[in-house]
Amino acid sequence: MSYEAYFQERLARLKDEGNYRVFTDLMRQRGAFPKATRFKESETGDVTVWCSNDYLGMGQHPAVLAAMHDALDTCGAGAGGTRNISGTTHHHVLLEQELADLHGKEAALLFTSGYVSNWAALGTLASEIPGCIVFSDSLNHASMIEGIRHSRAQKVIWKHNDLADLEMKLAAAPADAPKLIAFESVYSMDGDIAPIAEICDLADRYGAMTYLDEVHAVGMYGPRGGGIAEQEGLMHRLTVIEGTLGKAFGVVGGYIAASAALCDFVRSFASGFIFTTALPPAVAAGAAASVRHLKASASERRLQHQRVAELRARLDEIGIPHIKNPSHIIPVMVGDPVKCKYISDLLLDRFGIYIQPINYPTVPKGTERLRITPSPVHSAEDIDRLVSALAELWSACQLARRPMAAQ
Amino acid sequence: MSYEAYFQERLARLKDEGNYRVFTDLMRQRGAFPKATRFKESETGDVTVWCSNDYLGMGQHPAVLAAMHDALDTCGAGAGGTRNISGTTHHHVLLEQELADLHGKEAALLFTSGYVSNWAALGTLASEIPGCIVFSDSLNHASMIEGIRHSRAQKVIWKHNDLADLEMKLAAAPADAPKLIAFESVYSMDGDIAPIAEICDLADRYGAMTYLDEVHAVGMYGPRGGGIAEQEGLMHRLTVIEGTLGKAFGVVGGYIAASAALCDFVRSFASGFIFTTALPPAVAAGAAASVRHLKASASERRLQHQRVAELRARLDEIGIPHIKNPSHIIPVMVGDPVKCKYISDLLLDRFGIYIQPINYPTVPKGTERLRITPSPVHSAEDIDRLVSALAELWSACQLARRPMAAQ
Ligand SMILES: Cc1ncc(COP(=O)(O)O)c(C=O)c1O
Ligand SMILES: Cc1ncc(COP(=O)(O)O)c(C=O)c1O
Repeated sequence: MSYEAYFQERLARLKDEGNYRVFTDLMRQRGAFPKATRFKESETGDVTVWCSNDYLGMGQHPAVLAAMHDALDTCGAGAGGTRNISGTTHHHVLLEQELADLHGKEAALLFTSGYVSNWAALGTLASEIPGCIVFSDSLNHASMIEGIRHSRAQKVIWKHNDLADLEMKLAAAPADAPKLIAFESVYSMDGDIAPIAEICDLADRYGAMTYLDEVHAVGMYGPRGGGIAEQEGLMHRLTVIEGTLGKAFGVVGGYIAASAALCDFVRSFASGFIFTTALPPAVAAGAAASVRHLKASASERRLQHQRVAELRARLDEIGIPHIKNPSHIIPVMVGDPVKCKYISDLLLDRFGIYIQPINYPTVPKGTERLRITPSPVHSAEDIDRLVSALAELWSACQLARRPMAAQ
Repeated sequence: MSYEAYFQERLARLKDEGNYRVFTDLMRQRGAFPKATRFKESETGDVTVWCSNDYLGMGQHPAVLAAMHDALDTCGAGAGGTRNISGTTHHHVLLEQELADLHGKEAALLFTSGYVSNWAALGTLASEIPGCIVFSDSLNHASMIEGIRHSRAQKVIWKHNDLADLEMKLAAAPADAPKLIAFESVYSMDGDIAPIAEICDLADRYGAMTYLDEVHAVGMYGPRGGGIAEQEGLMHRLTVIEGTLGKAFGVVGGYIAASAALCDFVRSFASGFIFTTALPPAVAAGAAASVRHLKASASERRLQHQRVAELRARLDEIGIPHIKNPSHIIPVMVGDPVKCKYISDLLLDRFGIYIQPINYPTVPKGTERLRITPSPVHSAEDIDRLVSALAELWSACQLARRPMAAQ
């Protein structure tokens, strides 16, 4: 078999379908974000980033950067080992305390990413609790799906955010089987939010644990940035809250917050936690500074919500179709991978506006979209330029507008 | 079911077996490494770290730290997105070029860790090539095992470093089935090295791809730090070379280097690559500086080899049993989890010497050990203090010495 030919053929197929991904090569401009320098062949140019998950601009916050510079100066670059073999630094310990406190839990456990935290924590809980059945929302993130798949536990998929379906499936399982309900708060591609309280009610009724991915909510919702569960006063009802340090907190890494015994259990048995180099102390220090800042400061959250509302209203004025949802995510629907990429390319090349097209496999085929994430660091002029560019392209490409459109 | 009670019971069992892990809480001292500050309850004290995988002290190298400070100043903290959605920065692109060049390959692909690189790359290759059979060395690292398991491809385990067994198993498989041989160069717990050339010969004979984990060799072997395959002039014969940026390179992250088509294939299909926030630009910049430095400078490698030889000779003088191997890893065998932890605790508390006990599941039960990793930043006095502490403890604990021991 010619392996090379096989790889090339599969790549050609992706290109034919319009699903081949070309990464945009950027250099974020610290202090001027969402501005970034774009590299293309040997040229560079300025762009405004409208699709970052650095939702609050914390990636350039002085407190975060100072903590990272300081940790580099005092401890150096890497951790130099797994958490067990010389890689636990005091910065990791302090960050875990900060995260446990954020979610009102006894303990927290750090992972190298949100992806690994879901994969390792779900994989371990579901495989190490004999007979555990996992009830997984049908739109759960790839990292949760892979963790559950990894566990080889029985998996029951329930219809997205559908309480009746979840209840039917919980009721159908043996009453005494261990159960784990896995779901997200803010779903990142549609921006809709799970009915957390009602899911916890069902968990109580059927004796299930709850595992909530708050990756797209931590830092951004709740009085201290504890996420949707904090905003709704529900943190104490969840068995596990999982989050990332790489989106609103602006750095990188992931974690779970839960009881001390549960965290210690995952710490002791999760391959993806045990057998990997710990995050650099400077990353832990930066993330802790970010979490700490957003516990005390609500201004970033307030300003983000304003920007989101402004942009939504402006899109409505010109009839650009976007999914209405209660979160900070604005999915502008295109519904075709080739058109979606074409518009994105024009935005970038003609207008200096960067919004990555979101195609399969990140979203189902036929729901290709531009996913826009306004942040407190986007200015009123940034919004003006984005809206007029979209208006121009929507006309030029003859894309559908909403009936209420003022053309 | 009481989940809490179950977690506690499992943890109690670990404690009874002597396999419960207590992390040592450290603060590395930049510029004075291997010195670190140890935190215990409310006290702190100085220790010398002898079990770090920052094998060459690059975690405190001025070139690495300058690159990281600089990237923090220019780009900020996090990447702010997955590689596809705003998270590719120019630092990632440059690092991938640096790594492709290091291994003499067309391309390289970065992951958040070495663990994820093995898991995602092996998982993707073995699952996306229909009918692929994976031939896996019996001592492969957990991350490789999980990747292969993830793929659900047929897996054939061959006896560790045993060419006859590998050939027998290759010959027994259908001649036209796609095949992938997965192995490591330096095995981290025993420090032995695979017969790479002979494995490549078998791969050629049976039409198999080769996947070599050089995690414990990159930076440290070969004229430019390309690993054992570079040292032996074999890089071009391997289909995939995998490495980490978190050990000898002193930062964090992982990668594969291979043909452009193979890297693009993994880039396009690997869930663990696609659905996770990219490494911070400062991490990529620091790692690139480290790789670049170690391509040009052999002095760290030379000094490390000297320190390793010195320590081995000194251990032999006093009959402390350690595994002889051709690498930089010195496994001092204890063979009992409780004793291993006891000695390690005494080293730390009485002598300020930190060597984490390596117990199950990192090594098989009955082979518990102190794994010592001398580096160019360990001084002659550090070696003196280590050797006399071990001599004292070996006598006090009545541990076996080698026959040639001079007591
Ligand atoms: C819902 C969800 N969970 C987990 C992750 C993974 O988090 P991280 O980027 O920190 O790996 C993501 C996105 O990346 C996500 O969207
Ligand atoms: C052989 C081997 N491969 C891969 C890894 C994972 O690399 P990383 O620490 O970068 O996740 C390790 C150790 O951590 C290892 O020992």
